[in-house]
Amino acid sequence: MSSSTHRRFLSAGIALGWLAVMAPGPAPAAPPARDPLPSWNAGLAKTSITAYVARVTHPGPDFVPPPERIAVFDNDGTLWAEQPIYFQFAFAMERIGQMVAKDPSLREKPAFAAIADRDQAAMAKLSEKDLMEAVFAVQVGLTKDEYQAVAKAWFDQARHPRFHTPYTALTYKPQLELLAYLRGAGFKTYIVSGGEVQFMRVFAEQAYGVPPEQVIGTNLTTKFEMRGEQGVLVAQPTLGSMDDGPGKPSNIELHIGRRPLVAVGNSDGDLQMLQYSASSARPNLQILVHHDDAVREYAYDRQSKIGKLDKALDEAGARGWTVVSMKSDWKTVFAAEP
Amino acid sequence: MSSSTHRRFLSAGIALGWLAVMAPGPAPAAPPARDPLPSWNAGLAKTSITAYVARVTHPGPDFVPPPERIAVFDNDGTLWAEQPIYFQFAFAMERIGQMVAKDPSLREKPAFAAIADRDQAAMAKLSEKDLMEAVFAVQVGLTKDEYQAVAKAWFDQARHPRFHTPYTALTYKPQLELLAYLRGAGFKTYIVSGGEVQFMRVFAEQAYGVPPEQVIGTNLTTKFEMRGEQGVLVAQPTLGSMDDGPGKPSNIELHIGRRPLVAVGNSDGDLQMLQYSASSARPNLQILVHHDDAVREYAYDRQSKIGKLDKALDEAGARGWTVVSMKSDWKTVFAAEP
Repeated sequence: MSSSTHRRFLSAGIALGWLAVMAPGPAPAAPPARDPLPSWNAGLAKTSITAYVARVTHPGPDFVPPPERIAVFDNDGTLWAEQPIYFQFAFAMERIGQMVAKDPSLREKPAFAAIADRDQAAMAKLSEKDLMEAVFAVQVGLTKDEYQAVAKAWFDQARHPRFHTPYTALTYKPQLELLAYLRGAGFKTYIVSGGEVQFMRVFAEQAYGVPPEQVIGTNLTTKFEMRGEQGVLVAQPTLGSMDDGPGKPSNIELHIGRRPLVAVGNSDGDLQMLQYSASSARPNLQILVHHDDAVREYAYDRQSKIGKLDKALDEAGARGWTVVSMKSDWKTVFAAEP
Repeated sequence: MSSSTHRRFLSAGIALGWLAVMAPGPAPAAPPARDPLPSWNAGLAKTSITAYVARVTHPGPDFVPPPERIAVFDNDGTLWAEQPIYFQFAFAMERIGQMVAKDPSLREKPAFAAIADRDQAAMAKLSEKDLMEAVFAVQVGLTKDEYQAVAKAWFDQARHPRFHTPYTALTYKPQLELLAYLRGAGFKTYIVSGGEVQFMRVFAEQAYGVPPEQVIGTNLTTKFEMRGEQGVLVAQPTLGSMDDGPGKPSNIELHIGRRPLVAVGNSDGDLQMLQYSASSARPNLQILVHHDDAVREYAYDRQSKIGKLDKALDEAGARGWTVVSMKSDWKTVFAAEP
């Protein structure tokens, strides 16, 4: 035995000795891993999620450093329900009714009169611009604190017309699990929604565990004013940005500055966000929630006026994105079952 | 001794016994605390910072829960130098020179010709709008990756005209300590600067430890496009928002959604950000860096075209904000001494 071979054997012996000390017997059987997604039925959707997370968090060629673990979620129809109308629109309608009752001159604007009267025929004839203007009018001239107080008061008393629960009870339980699972795996979870940002911040932290600085949405511009020694921001009647469709990747880039690796949506308004995420050089995952459960929630896709899912569904098929069937992939739908 | 008095003595005895076990002798002298701000001279400025941090991080009526510990920093003149011209402007001038050399038709725009020729008289006559348009022209039509590659290449070879160092060597050492000190105390540190956001993201993480999602700046709008299967964002010739003066609190609210408790600036462009922070119901701290050190850096304030500090200096005096004298409060100025 040459001296170098001897040294190698000696090292091996020392190493084996250490191993013997370190591992004094067969390892005890690992306790069964807790299912991180208990409200998800076993199936392709669930597996695509857990396999992806395992792939990017374990050492190997696909490992992603934690700062780059960014996940973006649409809100309406993705994290909570959006039928029969967007919840923010239900809020705006009630608020506009109150505003018109206080100041009847507001009826001069057709959108205000139609909404205050719940005149569905007149509402159907309104342009999107007029509707938007009316929805944002509930906020214009208010500071964030004033506006959020109005929204909180609405949340406290408003009930969903079909489920008769507070709107915040209509968040999706499997998605709350998914948010928590991703955060546990080192992902920073963001909301990127067409909803107005300050409205979402009223409930996002409590409902989803997403802090205000991780909520991105449509926004009005604001104007800084001093009221005495108090500096406040007052909402203006000018759109800052529309966080829908191609506006989503633009806002993601502006606010986050990193390409998200996980993108979750449910409608064509999320298509560009999913495409943007799918273009990452890192392993990535795109998920679409398909509303196909008329019994427990709603069934709608290509023909729906709200949450239309058409082009994005085709692209999901062509590119192998994960399509979640609410009916078969979710054991439970709502966080608080109605 | 009544039985209740007896019980009390007994309890006291047990308690004393426990104390004797728990504290078997005089506590060893605590090691002297490491100075978290070694480049700051002892004085009012340093004390105002350390006293504030102690106040909000120790249990008591002024304790601030960690999620609300938000600190915002201006960049130019606050975290790194800004003379004789903003560093981003030095970059844009060089880049415009290259663009005009390649495409002489660009000379038709007076700003491009003046900048390419380094014609100071002509440049002085340009409107702010023309100058801005020229500065942003270096970015329009590029994706973030393309633009950042150009900026990185510039940083690699550019040298400051007075100090002959790379521009990134001209960050302020005491401010790097302050950023780290605040982060160590649970503060989330943001940059909120008039500089363009993607330009700052080239160096902010390495230079300051501030990740892209905590960099807020002036920005151009972007347009989402598919290039084959690749989704990219292309900078447009339209200002998204101007992150200066009253634009700073507006962007803070949009991006962060919380009122910052610590705000650090150096010019009138930071006044509203400091006012906004000073209006918090929580204990808060406003800091202005005063450039009064012509020997080691520059001396300028009320009359300066770049980094003018006039109204904010008056307000600092009136409201008791912390004014940092670069000359007397800072032991060392630059991160890498020239």
